[in-house]
Amino acid sequence: MNEKGLAGVVIALPTPLHPDETVDVESLCRLMDHTINGGADAIMIGGTMGEGVALLDSQKRILVETAVAHNAGRITLLATVSETSTKRSIDFVRSIRHCPVDYWVCTSPYYNKFPDPQSVLTHITEIRGSSDRPLVFYNAPLATGNPVDVDTLDRILNMEGIAGVKDSSTNFGLFMEMLRRYPKGDRPASIMQGDESVFDVSLLLGADGVVSGGGVVFVELLKELYATACSNNPAQSMVLQRRLSQELRALLGPRAGRDWVAKIKQRLVDMDVIGASHVSAPFLTHIDTVGDE
Amino acid sequence: MNEKGLAGVVIALPTPLHPDETVDVESLCRLMDHTINGGADAIMIGGTMGEGVALLDSQKRILVETAVAHNAGRITLLATVSETSTKRSIDFVRSIRHCPVDYWVCTSPYYNKFPDPQSVLTHITEIRGSSDRPLVFYNAPLATGNPVDVDTLDRILNMEGIAGVKDSSTNFGLFMEMLRRYPKGDRPASIMQGDESVFDVSLLLGADGVVSGGGVVFVELLKELYATACSNNPAQSMVLQRRLSQELRALLGPRAGRDWVAKIKQRLVDMDVIGASHVSAPFLTHIDTVGDE
Amino acid sequence: MNEKGLAGVVIALPTPLHPDETVDVESLCRLMDHTINGGADAIMIGGTMGEGVALLDSQKRILVETAVAHNAGRITLLATVSETSTKRSIDFVRSIRHCPVDYWVCTSPYYNKFPDPQSVLTHITEIRGSSDRPLVFYNAPLATGNPVDVDTLDRILNMEGIAGVKDSSTNFGLFMEMLRRYPKGDRPASIMQGDESVFDVSLLLGADGVVSGGGVVFVELLKELYATACSNNPAQSMVLQRRLSQELRALLGPRAGRDWVAKIKQRLVDMDVIGASHVSAPFLTHIDTVGDE
Amino acid sequence: MNEKGLAGVVIALPTPLHPDETVDVESLCRLMDHTINGGADAIMIGGTMGEGVALLDSQKRILVETAVAHNAGRITLLATVSETSTKRSIDFVRSIRHCPVDYWVCTSPYYNKFPDPQSVLTHITEIRGSSDRPLVFYNAPLATGNPVDVDTLDRILNMEGIAGVKDSSTNFGLFMEMLRRYPKGDRPASIMQGDESVFDVSLLLGADGVVSGGGVVFVELLKELYATACSNNPAQSMVLQRRLSQELRALLGPRAGRDWVAKIKQRLVDMDVIGASHVSAPFLTHIDTVGDE
Repeated sequence: MNEKGLAGVVIALPTPLHPDETVDVESLCRLMDHTINGGADAIMIGGTMGEGVALLDSQKRILVETAVAHNAGRITLLATVSETSTKRSIDFVRSIRHCPVDYWVCTSPYYNKFPDPQSVLTHITEIRGSSDRPLVFYNAPLATGNPVDVDTLDRILNMEGIAGVKDSSTNFGLFMEMLRRYPKGDRPASIMQGDESVFDVSLLLGADGVVSGGGVVFVELLKELYATACSNNPAQSMVLQRRLSQELRALLGPRAGRDWVAKIKQRLVDMDVIGASHVSAPFLTHIDTVGDE
Repeated sequence: MNEKGLAGVVIALPTPLHPDETVDVESLCRLMDHTINGGADAIMIGGTMGEGVALLDSQKRILVETAVAHNAGRITLLATVSETSTKRSIDFVRSIRHCPVDYWVCTSPYYNKFPDPQSVLTHITEIRGSSDRPLVFYNAPLATGNPVDVDTLDRILNMEGIAGVKDSSTNFGLFMEMLRRYPKGDRPASIMQGDESVFDVSLLLGADGVVSGGGVVFVELLKELYATACSNNPAQSMVLQRRLSQELRALLGPRAGRDWVAKIKQRLVDMDVIGASHVSAPFLTHIDTVGDE
Repeated sequence: MNEKGLAGVVIALPTPLHPDETVDVESLCRLMDHTINGGADAIMIGGTMGEGVALLDSQKRILVETAVAHNAGRITLLATVSETSTKRSIDFVRSIRHCPVDYWVCTSPYYNKFPDPQSVLTHITEIRGSSDRPLVFYNAPLATGNPVDVDTLDRILNMEGIAGVKDSSTNFGLFMEMLRRYPKGDRPASIMQGDESVFDVSLLLGADGVVSGGGVVFVELLKELYATACSNNPAQSMVLQRRLSQELRALLGPRAGRDWVAKIKQRLVDMDVIGASHVSAPFLTHIDTVGDE
Repeated sequence: MNEKGLAGVVIALPTPLHPDETVDVESLCRLMDHTINGGADAIMIGGTMGEGVALLDSQKRILVETAVAHNAGRITLLATVSETSTKRSIDFVRSIRHCPVDYWVCTSPYYNKFPDPQSVLTHITEIRGSSDRPLVFYNAPLATGNPVDVDTLDRILNMEGIAGVKDSSTNFGLFMEMLRRYPKGDRPASIMQGDESVFDVSLLLGADGVVSGGGVVFVELLKELYATACSNNPAQSMVLQRRLSQELRALLGPRAGRDWVAKIKQRLVDMDVIGASHVSAPFLTHIDTVGDE
């Protein structure tokens, strides 16, 4: 684990798959090497970009085991363990906690609605207690249907064993209020931005780092943006953010909502980093959707 | 299986649990007897009311096996197999398809967004193909985050092996348009209403039946409402609907969004039908929330 | 005024305009004759369809004065007086209350948000008190941004001098609950449906009538739907509703949100009922938008 | 008019009223003096805070005439002329354009929906052309129901005679993208933040200024925040923003959505700046709502 805690450019890795949706271990290793060599500060596996909730538990375990073994301590490693309930999350952590990742990552539970803050606090406490590794809370209300307010995020940042919050709420006011309450260098845990459209301003105002799925194909640009913002250069940070947003738009195209996973994998195929662009059903591949709009 | 297809009053059963969140088999059997003796037309297990997505797979299998064995063919039985991806859904069905339920039930996948109709169609087709039992599609966009439009529901109703659609969208216009396209007695599959606030009008206009979670404590009232609406008595149907809505409000209380599962289980405890009101974390029990608002 | 109160098919009339957005009085008279001869039960002027809030006050007065004079008591006449505040509403009513319309119609105020039910109740009470004519409350939260709950609508129905509620909330559950509380023939004021997609079920379950803007070009079809539903023929009512929805879709086309006012006026021009399809800026005419998507 | 264009701390003034909702001219003059003496850079009258859309046209004219006369050129003056349609807006501007304000301010039209960008562009162009004074576009989608996308805002910033955009969308990503496209010192028109919860970050990243309604009672704090952010001191800016947010919360209380106008006026009464806290109906006064929740 990074001694200074979770920070910098975290790449949320896609999971290369075979046609039968088993993990393409060989491609995964190449993709990790590519990302590490590109200068990323950390790798997150099995997140939204990694189709984590869609894979069979057996494949998720192969994903974690492979990543830990292939990494061999070269880079900070985060592994996502989100599930629909506390019990299911703990059950999965227990089956994989022998793997020395640096951080587990979990979202709120999903499908059901849990409007009481006590629910997410209990959920996190119990998952945290089920292994000896620190936990990162991934705030992803658009996926889980369970928004978390700033006072609850504040309590999470102060929980024992919590290494940070990755915020993908796309609610910038919420994110900003965390930064205001805890100035950089004096906060109980890391505050990471997961919304790729506001990386510049988040870093300029004191975020510890960014987590990017699409960034797997733009690692160097992300590194430059991170360094520029941390050296307090707003004008150039904004120029780089605009470039990042434009590159992402060009990559994803007009049907991004439908085939974004396949589009990013296909680009990695084109870059000769992974072997194929297969996705887990019912995600669509770009081929399925040609001409249908 | 009911020869005339899926119809009438379907009770979505809560799943009685022990404190460790394993299935309380003895209570489950008593609850089934209570529901069957009350006159329900069918029982659905493992749905939203049944905390289906929250239980461990091992417990979900015990739930289905117990229900099938204890039912012994007395009542139509539906079992929910919803999961986050097609692969995970099929994997679960395969592990339990030896159990002769009457229907499997699945929602759209959840957590990820699948805006292209092709995704849900593929999902349903593949799940349908993984067993020899008919499938009911459970339209639950508030839980899954994946709304399905009426033209896609129309295609689902016409798919081979699809026994019906249970609509819990709370979008009455959508439901009504299905009824318009397929008059009662001349439709490819059953059309069931899952929104407890519009059972009266849905049945009066030709729905085949209703699916109710809260209804487990009001089986006789639901039966009366069903019979009244099917005999085309709008005025009395509306009186009964108002009674149902009032009883549900009184049962659930002002914090329904936070402890509805516990509230319904507690009522069943009070009725001496199940042994305890334990819920799966991070659902809250009524005790946790006393005095906290 | 109709002795039995507000009921039947109410046509919300477009307001024919000259290029300078003054009222085209000659076309207005022809359009009224067309609507009356088509068998409508009532005409509503200056509503959403009539661009009521967009016209100059001077033109709104000409609209009311012309309609009253040309009607000469032939048909029930409603005139909309919606404004952004109580004071502005009353000011307008006072300037036009010498015109013997049958009902004034007002929505909640708009632009500002008024979440307290007391606001809309005060608003209605004061407007009601500013003339000797009964008032119809037009529930249009999509336009005003101010939703009204069912208990408040219930209080409005029971206010002195309130002749009815026209509900365009597109919230069918809300509408249905009004019908449940007040069975047809035993209600304090009329309950009218303004959502053209659920006219069939609303009338079948006891609505007093419907208010339709697009219906100005389908008066006979609306009359047939009304008669069929009131004679309690659900199957045929649904057939007619489907026909109505299809005709409206065909008329409005794929850009309905942008040029619906112009499209309906153009159809009336094509039917030789009004002279031109001019709309108030910044509504778009069909000509502006050709080829731009 | 300020030679360097619209910038700094703009106070959106409440409109002091008599019980009959006519303008309390004496209080208005005192309130202006208070604001000018407090160091504000500009005053905006008749905006959302000023109940502008709620007042009678005759009172709005008195408001503008009084403000211009009493100001006597001491401070930059903006006057809002928002209306439901282009015609009504122009009509109002023409009735008041003899008053030498520095800027007119208009929102999108409201009540009706105008999803085509051409509508708002036409609206602004025509209003701009109806006087010889520059126009500020006030992006207020929560009030108007008509959101404007960033490409359209970009076109507005570049229109002739447009002095700036005040953004109250609460969509920070949108605001930030304007700042990215047009670095401070090199932009076609001013970019002002109207969302009081993100003044710090907006100014730190290059906004020209802020527009605040609640700020009328915190002019000095706003001035300090503005100076601190413009001297590029993020840490202290965030401290001041937190103070501002806390003061506003304390002032508005838990029912802010219902009586915010009355609460702010009452504070001004307590500060002995205006004579009474009367509001336009159906806004509620604090007295109406005591004990009712």
